[in-house]
Amino acid sequence: MNRIQNIQPPDKTAYFSAKKRWDSVAKPLGSFGELEHMIQKIAAIQNTDNVQIDKRTAVVFCADHGVVQEGVTQTGSEVTAVCAYAIADGTSNVNAIADACHADVLAVDIGMLTDVEHPRLLRKKVAYGTANLAKEPAMTPEQTEKALCIGMDIAEDLKKQGVQLLITGEMGIGNTTPTSALASVLLDASPREVTGRGAGLSTEALERKIHVIEQAIALHQPDKKHPLDLLAKLGGLEIAGMTGLFLGGAYYQIPVVIDGVISAVSAVLACQLNPLCAEYMLPSHVSGEPSGKRLLEMMHLHPVIHAGLRLGEGTGGLLLLPLLDSALALYRNSHKFEDIAIERYTEQS
Amino acid sequence: MNRIQNIQPPDKTAYFSAKKRWDSVAKPLGSFGELEHMIQKIAAIQNTDNVQIDKRTAVVFCADHGVVQEGVTQTGSEVTAVCAYAIADGTSNVNAIADACHADVLAVDIGMLTDVEHPRLLRKKVAYGTANLAKEPAMTPEQTEKALCIGMDIAEDLKKQGVQLLITGEMGIGNTTPTSALASVLLDASPREVTGRGAGLSTEALERKIHVIEQAIALHQPDKKHPLDLLAKLGGLEIAGMTGLFLGGAYYQIPVVIDGVISAVSAVLACQLNPLCAEYMLPSHVSGEPSGKRLLEMMHLHPVIHAGLRLGEGTGGLLLLPLLDSALALYRNSHKFEDIAIERYTEQS
Repeated sequence: MNRIQNIQPPDKTAYFSAKKRWDSVAKPLGSFGELEHMIQKIAAIQNTDNVQIDKRTAVVFCADHGVVQEGVTQTGSEVTAVCAYAIADGTSNVNAIADACHADVLAVDIGMLTDVEHPRLLRKKVAYGTANLAKEPAMTPEQTEKALCIGMDIAEDLKKQGVQLLITGEMGIGNTTPTSALASVLLDASPREVTGRGAGLSTEALERKIHVIEQAIALHQPDKKHPLDLLAKLGGLEIAGMTGLFLGGAYYQIPVVIDGVISAVSAVLACQLNPLCAEYMLPSHVSGEPSGKRLLEMMHLHPVIHAGLRLGEGTGGLLLLPLLDSALALYRNSHKFEDIAIERYTEQS
Repeated sequence: MNRIQNIQPPDKTAYFSAKKRWDSVAKPLGSFGELEHMIQKIAAIQNTDNVQIDKRTAVVFCADHGVVQEGVTQTGSEVTAVCAYAIADGTSNVNAIADACHADVLAVDIGMLTDVEHPRLLRKKVAYGTANLAKEPAMTPEQTEKALCIGMDIAEDLKKQGVQLLITGEMGIGNTTPTSALASVLLDASPREVTGRGAGLSTEALERKIHVIEQAIALHQPDKKHPLDLLAKLGGLEIAGMTGLFLGGAYYQIPVVIDGVISAVSAVLACQLNPLCAEYMLPSHVSGEPSGKRLLEMMHLHPVIHAGLRLGEGTGGLLLLPLLDSALALYRNSHKFEDIAIERYTEQS
C-alpha cells in the first residue's frame, strides 16, 4: 500500500510541449477541444510529446455480490460466470467492441461465486463473492486491501508488457447496488437521487434497491473521509480491483480510461486515496445511470461521449480509443502552418 | 427541384427488424443507447437490417463570402483556396481524420474566389464567392438553386458509386457569419445569442460580427417560412451545397452525418424544405459555437460527441464513424442470448 502514497505527478513539461505541437497544426487554436487536452494529458503521463497508445488493454474485473440475495437484480449471480467465460473466450460484448477499437481484453476473476475454467481467465479470486452489505460489511479490510493490490499489480504487469493505455471494465451481477451506495456517500446525495434501474429493473424492484441502500448506509454509517473503510463496507471486489487499477495506473504512469458509473465510483475512491490519480485518468462517456455525471464532475473530468450507454464490461471506455486515435492522427500527420505558408490563426484577446 | 417534394420516408419495417436484432444481443435491452437507435435509423434508410457503412465519403464544400469585407474574420479569403488545395491533395486536417476513420474525402469548389487547380478537386463553381450580405442578398435565387442541385447531384453520383454513408464538411473563411445570421432567424434568437468567435475572433471583432448580422437581418427582413429566400439572402454557397447534400441523401436514401454548426444550419434548412430529411440525418457532435446545440434540438437529434470541437472541414462528423463501426460490431458479432443460454434481460414495467 506504500504505492498509494508514492504516486508522482505527471510531467508538466511534456504537457506543454504537446500543446505547442497542437498549436503548430494548421487549424484554429484549440479547435479539437477536449481531445487536444487528453492527448496533452497522455503526453504528460508518458513523459514525452511523442504520444503512443497503440498497445492498450481493457481489464475486466469479474465478481459477485452478496446483496443479490435482497432481490435487487433481475438476473441471478450465475450470469456473472457465464459472461466472464464469454469475455475470456473472446465472444462477449466487450470483445466485439475491443476488436473494433483495436484493444486487448483481459478478464480477471477477482471474486466470482463460481470457479470458471478458461485458460485466458486470470485467476485472482479474493473471495467467493462479497458478503451481503445490507447486513454486514461487504468485505473485510484484508479483502479490500488484497483486491486493491491485485489491481495495482495488474497495472504493473501490463506496464512491463509494454501496454500504453488501460481501460477499466467490470462484470458483476448486482454491482450497481454497491455503486449507488458508494455514490450516495461520496456525493452527499440521497440513495433515491443516485440509484437507477441498472440493467432494467422494474419500479417495484427499484424501490427495493433504494431501500436496501438506505438500510446499508444506516447500518454501516460509513465516512467518506475514510475511503478504504467505505469501500470495504459498501463496495465490491471488482470495484476495489478497478480502484487498484486506477491507483496502479497513476503509480506506474499509464493513463487509465474510466468507463461507466461503476468505474467512475472506483475512480473517485482512488482520488480520495490520492488526488493525483485524477491526472492519470481519461473520462470517456457519461453513463445513463443517475450518478454518472456527478461523479465525473467531482473529479473535474469532462467525458466526451454522451450516448446513454449502460452496457458495462468496459465497452463505453473502449469507444474513447478511436477518438484518441483520430486526434493523434491530426496531431502527428496534419500539415503544419510552416508547410502551407499561411498566417497562424492566433487567439486574439 | 422536384426531388425535394419527392423524398420518401425510410422503411419502418427494417427499423424494427434491426431493433429486434439488437434485442437478441446478450446485454441489457437498449444499453448501447443512441448508437442502437442510429444503427436502426441506417437500417431503415438502407431498407435492410443488414446494415453496411464500409464505403463512406466526406464531401467538403469550399466557398468564399463577400461579408469578409466587413472585417468579421481574422484571416483573409485567400486561406479558403489554400485549405481547399490541401484537402484535395490529401494533406489537410480532414484527411488525417478521414484516414483514421476509414473514409474518403471529396473536395468541391462550389464558389471559391480563386480557381484552384488540383486533379482531385471537383469543380462546380457557381460564383466567385457570394455578395456581401450586409449590403445585398448573398446569392441570387438562381445561384441558390444551382448550389442545392449540385449537392443533390453529388449525393446521386456517390450513391451510384456505392457509397453507403455521407459526411458533410465545409471550408470557407467567413462562413460562421452567414451561419449565425441564419441561426438567428431559424431559432428566433438575437444575433448576440447565436454568434460566436468562429476560429478565435477578438472581442472587438465579435462585436463587429454581431453588428453586421443585425444589420443584414434588418436589411433583408428574411422569413424563415421561406427557406430558399432565407438561404439566398443570408447564406453561402457551401451552406447551400450542404443543404443540397442533405436533400439528396434523403432523396437517394443515403444517411448523411451532420458535422458542426455550419452543417447543422444547412440541415435545418433542408428540414424546412422537407421535414422528412431529418430521418436521413445522423447527428455527430455538438459544436463549440453557441447555436450548435439548439439547431440540433430543433430537429430532435441527439449528438453523441460533446468535446467542444470547432475545427470544421467535416472533422467532427467523421468522428461518429468509429462509434458506429463499434456499434455495428456489437450488433453483428456479439454472442446472442440463444448461444449462451441465459435468460433474456427483460425490461420490466
